[in-house]
Amino acid sequence: MTSVDLNADLGESYGTWTLGDDRSMLGLVTSANVACGFHAGDPAHLLETLRLAAAHRVDVGAQVSYPDLRGFGRRDLDLPAADLTADIIYQIGALQALATVAGTRVRYVKPHGALYNRIVHDERQAAAVVEAVVALDPALALVGLPDSEVGRLAEAEGLRFVPEAFADRAYRADGTLVSRTEAGAVLHDRDEIAERMLRLAAEGVITSIDGTDIALSAETICVHGDTPDAVGIARAVREALAASGLTITSFSEH
Amino acid sequence: MTSVDLNADLGESYGTWTLGDDRSMLGLVTSANVACGFHAGDPAHLLETLRLAAAHRVDVGAQVSYPDLRGFGRRDLDLPAADLTADIIYQIGALQALATVAGTRVRYVKPHGALYNRIVHDERQAAAVVEAVVALDPALALVGLPDSEVGRLAEAEGLRFVPEAFADRAYRADGTLVSRTEAGAVLHDRDEIAERMLRLAAEGVITSIDGTDIALSAETICVHGDTPDAVGIARAVREALAASGLTITSFSEH
Amino acid sequence: MTSVDLNADLGESYGTWTLGDDRSMLGLVTSANVACGFHAGDPAHLLETLRLAAAHRVDVGAQVSYPDLRGFGRRDLDLPAADLTADIIYQIGALQALATVAGTRVRYVKPHGALYNRIVHDERQAAAVVEAVVALDPALALVGLPDSEVGRLAEAEGLRFVPEAFADRAYRADGTLVSRTEAGAVLHDRDEIAERMLRLAAEGVITSIDGTDIALSAETICVHGDTPDAVGIARAVREALAASGLTITSFSEH
Amino acid sequence: MTSVDLNADLGESYGTWTLGDDRSMLGLVTSANVACGFHAGDPAHLLETLRLAAAHRVDVGAQVSYPDLRGFGRRDLDLPAADLTADIIYQIGALQALATVAGTRVRYVKPHGALYNRIVHDERQAAAVVEAVVALDPALALVGLPDSEVGRLAEAEGLRFVPEAFADRAYRADGTLVSRTEAGAVLHDRDEIAERMLRLAAEGVITSIDGTDIALSAETICVHGDTPDAVGIARAVREALAASGLTITSFSEH
Repeated sequence: MTSVDLNADLGESYGTWTLGDDRSMLGLVTSANVACGFHAGDPAHLLETLRLAAAHRVDVGAQVSYPDLRGFGRRDLDLPAADLTADIIYQIGALQALATVAGTRVRYVKPHGALYNRIVHDERQAAAVVEAVVALDPALALVGLPDSEVGRLAEAEGLRFVPEAFADRAYRADGTLVSRTEAGAVLHDRDEIAERMLRLAAEGVITSIDGTDIALSAETICVHGDTPDAVGIARAVREALAASGLTITSFSEH
Repeated sequence: MTSVDLNADLGESYGTWTLGDDRSMLGLVTSANVACGFHAGDPAHLLETLRLAAAHRVDVGAQVSYPDLRGFGRRDLDLPAADLTADIIYQIGALQALATVAGTRVRYVKPHGALYNRIVHDERQAAAVVEAVVALDPALALVGLPDSEVGRLAEAEGLRFVPEAFADRAYRADGTLVSRTEAGAVLHDRDEIAERMLRLAAEGVITSIDGTDIALSAETICVHGDTPDAVGIARAVREALAASGLTITSFSEH
Repeated sequence: MTSVDLNADLGESYGTWTLGDDRSMLGLVTSANVACGFHAGDPAHLLETLRLAAAHRVDVGAQVSYPDLRGFGRRDLDLPAADLTADIIYQIGALQALATVAGTRVRYVKPHGALYNRIVHDERQAAAVVEAVVALDPALALVGLPDSEVGRLAEAEGLRFVPEAFADRAYRADGTLVSRTEAGAVLHDRDEIAERMLRLAAEGVITSIDGTDIALSAETICVHGDTPDAVGIARAVREALAASGLTITSFSEH
Repeated sequence: MTSVDLNADLGESYGTWTLGDDRSMLGLVTSANVACGFHAGDPAHLLETLRLAAAHRVDVGAQVSYPDLRGFGRRDLDLPAADLTADIIYQIGALQALATVAGTRVRYVKPHGALYNRIVHDERQAAAVVEAVVALDPALALVGLPDSEVGRLAEAEGLRFVPEAFADRAYRADGTLVSRTEAGAVLHDRDEIAERMLRLAAEGVITSIDGTDIALSAETICVHGDTPDAVGIARAVREALAASGLTITSFSEH
């Protein structure tokens, strides 16, 4: 790896409620996963976030989700495939229009929360997501977990699939994420996090929660924007990677 | 007038609840105002409606609304201008993406319900709607009440404004619609309705609820799809207009 | 069995969309499962339904659901237990207040749709539902599938659990319902349905979808109100049961 | 005045989004206006807030609102009276049930945001609110602006109406609040705010935004919980009032 992309979830405020520090994060990441209104993000906040992303020349992706404001898209929902496909087309289109007005455009799709985790293994929902992207615009990339059902289906349908690692999340030995409901799922020490990402970039290896090293292939690294020290962690990761000689650019330029 | 457009509100089912007879109406109208999810229309139903519209070669417009499923967009809402603009961009974009997948495209925007009525006179909200359309795509036409604030602003901004008449609604002497909460607001007799539309097309005149004739300039006639005899009324209007020698075509071809 | 209760899901209209024929069904059933706004039923419609139920002297239950208007509560949702418990208390309370104003009161709770099916076997969600009812008012009965997790937990906590049979649904050999997504899940022939319910009342036996007879203990029979021939089926079941000498009364009087 | 009540809006978090410092505010106020889910407050957060209120022995009121999460209930909505009445009964009931489980009870109703302001002058909506409270439980008090339409109607119907002053809001010379969209609407200086409330308590007078003194009769003072220095302001007001010899108790004990 000679260059790496950093992505973060942005635009996740809703009405009177704010979440994350979008402005600071946009100074650190190269790809912005912007919410689409189904788990977070009202249209006015989304437009503002997209204008900021355009001003920072950060690439924009559609962070599509189950319809679940109350649960922030983190509750598993058993959607029929046709409904899921239509829901995803709807969300991408809404964000595309806002992006156009903001002077930018949507380059990729990143499913959020419970949907992200489900399509790692659920073939029916993974196919529904892939079908939505292929039908709307096959030039859109799809970001997801390496070695996942959605990754295999996306590539079989001719989409660019971008494998992703999570800076602040613990991994199981099988390469999946430790669930947020389990202890140790989210890492908080910025030095440890930066160290892990350095090793991932240099060796393609990360240490799982049971101590074994696992191979992980990733083109983009997700840094979260809604944890207490989010900006500090993102900066530590970015600086460590840059110091090691890697170029930090959006994956659309890889 | 040598040709006239017939439009109807379609795609207004939601989840388990169905409304109107979209399939029959698509055999009668030349423009379909498809809901966008804010007052009606879940994404899966919208995609199905758009596919039917494409199959019937009926033009598609985005029927944008206040966010109000419970009130079907018929309750006046005092939205800040920036929120309204963003809400409208979001809705148009969502429908554009679904239309792309369905093999058609959005050609115009028609505000719905309380929003439609408010922008007849409310300059701030009218400007917010016009701004959304201009910023997203100035090639989109805007449908609304003749001699309205939104019509004047749309034309001042270079949009095509398409004045509309309502087949089954009573008019006040000032050319505005009698409110649905008042007696006599909705007409039900198909012969009377067809007769009124014939006279409108031939003479540019309609009789108001107080009996006076008023001049009304309209390029498109709205026939409703959710009243008991909706399909029968729409057919009567279409047949009467066609029998009088008028060509029934979408206004995009006028 | 010398007396039997007939229940139906009512109050499932929402805003402009109507569903079912509440008025006719209230002339046939002895218990009304009234929606609570989470899968259907806006407050104004609920109040109207409760007034009708009071006028018909039909017992009222709270038909609690996952929060899912779009999916009519039929989509499985992986809710944390604490959220589910609070959601159920909220819904029962809302209906209790509307019932008070309508001159009646909530006597039982019947979970709806995907929640109903999940708590047949999911101990965590079943316990969350039972906890809500016990904490709010242990005098409320709980209606559910016989031989279910929720039934066992309800009785262990001292609640009255009322086992239920479905007039128009096919059963698997294990006593669970055939899923609505499978062929043959819903029966449509009113004579066949009445015949099955007669045998259930007389012998405690029903024929499963694979042809085997299964024992089924039920104190209440659910007749649906939203299928094409709903009222006709409900009437046929009621008349057959009454003709056989059974008394049709609400289970609160059993 | 020898005793005064302090109230604050609480329970206004929603899902992943938190708002205000409920725990600190509950140590300062004597009445908690708890949201009911329509403008803020999911059931699980509401139950938690109610348990805290019970533990602090703070009186609980139902902060009912227009259905408007996106706009935090601050956008004027033209609801039909029957819908508004049913919406309010629904919200009060939901909170009553959660309060029961939390070991407390709802003692009063305080409309929120745009609804609060509208029923100062809109007789139709004011009557709809009063009707809801009278029909559900006439022992509930109603909190609102002094010299308002809702106050007159509430008292005419035999309800206890509790007139309220706002610690951090500017007043017009006619005794209504300066709109949040205007400059100077919200005060931020804690000493100035405490000083104004002291004078209000001692003399029944407050200085309006144009500099004139106006008479204001209030039994309860609202301190906000969602502004930057909310807790500091609330503490300053409480300490100033207590230091002047006033007893700080809930109005239910006045």
